[in-house]
Amino acid sequence: MNTVKDSHTHHISQQFNEELEGVKKSMLEMGGLVEKQVRDAIKSLINADTELADIVVERDELVNDMELNIDQECTQILAKRQPAASDLRLVLAVSKCISDLERIGDEAAKIARLAAELTEQGESQPGFVEVRHIGEEVSSMIQQALTAFARLDVDSALKVAHDDKIVDLEYRSTVRELITYMMEDPRSISRVLNIIWCLRALERVGDHAMNIGEHVIYLAKGLDVRHMDIEQVEDKLETVNK
Amino acid sequence: MNTVKDSHTHHISQQFNEELEGVKKSMLEMGGLVEKQVRDAIKSLINADTELADIVVERDELVNDMELNIDQECTQILAKRQPAASDLRLVLAVSKCISDLERIGDEAAKIARLAAELTEQGESQPGFVEVRHIGEEVSSMIQQALTAFARLDVDSALKVAHDDKIVDLEYRSTVRELITYMMEDPRSISRVLNIIWCLRALERVGDHAMNIGEHVIYLAKGLDVRHMDIEQVEDKLETVNK
Repeated sequence: MNTVKDSHTHHISQQFNEELEGVKKSMLEMGGLVEKQVRDAIKSLINADTELADIVVERDELVNDMELNIDQECTQILAKRQPAASDLRLVLAVSKCISDLERIGDEAAKIARLAAELTEQGESQPGFVEVRHIGEEVSSMIQQALTAFARLDVDSALKVAHDDKIVDLEYRSTVRELITYMMEDPRSISRVLNIIWCLRALERVGDHAMNIGEHVIYLAKGLDVRHMDIEQVEDKLETVNK
Repeated sequence: MNTVKDSHTHHISQQFNEELEGVKKSMLEMGGLVEKQVRDAIKSLINADTELADIVVERDELVNDMELNIDQECTQILAKRQPAASDLRLVLAVSKCISDLERIGDEAAKIARLAAELTEQGESQPGFVEVRHIGEEVSSMIQQALTAFARLDVDSALKVAHDDKIVDLEYRSTVRELITYMMEDPRSISRVLNIIWCLRALERVGDHAMNIGEHVIYLAKGLDVRHMDIEQVEDKLETVNK
């Protein structure tokens, strides 16, 4: 009897592990798609590629569907499996990450929509170099945050937070430059504002990547480090590691 | 023996109910504070009241702390009580709502920071009438979304989604007017851009209020209506109610 029961328990727990791995895998897949969305949105903007811009906008629905499906899987795991400790943390971290990923998807779609408008407004634009540069940075931040999640790598998660600080500074200095540009050429205002919206969208993508990094720290260390400065986080982690 | 056990079970379930009511109450309190933050931020802007602006910025920490505490309570309920069905939905809805409330708090702090800058730039500004008007609308939307949550009132939740559409239109037409203003008076660009940032922050507050309305529908009807048009939501609800 006991062996049967053990094998049954073993079977259940194996299924449970598969479900946990399943949502984690789905989340990382969603992350990969969202990273591609950001890269494609920037590409459509820089290359005035309206076709690609349309694809990005359409694909955002897929991103939204993924969020709903994964969230439903998480709820089902909570209801059926009643996970505890680190399993519960994993489900909750996944559920928070997909919300950030969905918002990154929204920002990518926003950039793609602006790309379509900017194409109508003519070729090379002021601020494009910076859009490409910051776009490259935040795309790498998404990738790094996801890898950190997959590997429970706290150092990589912290690196994302550091990078976000740099992106914020670059964003602010670029906007300042673009304001000067508009003052010198007031006819450019609508056009340049669209580029500022793109930069702002990218800056927010960076924030969401950083949030994912925070969820990694929660998952790995059980520490909720939201709303802390990066220095505070590092201090806190040192105390925990002692 | 049985009576003791029943009374014990009864005791546990009463405690459980109190915990559920507790997080719900805390969430509504946080919502009240956040609504006040938005109203005070607008007031500090319109009245050039830097003292009030400072208070709003400082109080954002309290909002952040509330999010962390309520989220922790939710996690503890999930771990200890392993709620099912509508109890699980309540905990998950609260946990999602506080994330939207925290972001509303961020937007309010952003407006207060801009208010301090705008005060330095001089008295009455273009776009202030619209800021006050849209500010009033989104503050009411927060209130309505919270009341809808407290009463599980789906109609009120839908009303918030309708209002959000109006706010979006008003936001867009105001930004268009302000662009014209800047083109006619390029020296106003930095100043007017700050007002555009405020309007954008308010527009996002409206989005978050709408999200809270969506969580109410999820809680009341078990329907996840995120990413749907309001018409789709109404159709879907009609099918459920039949």
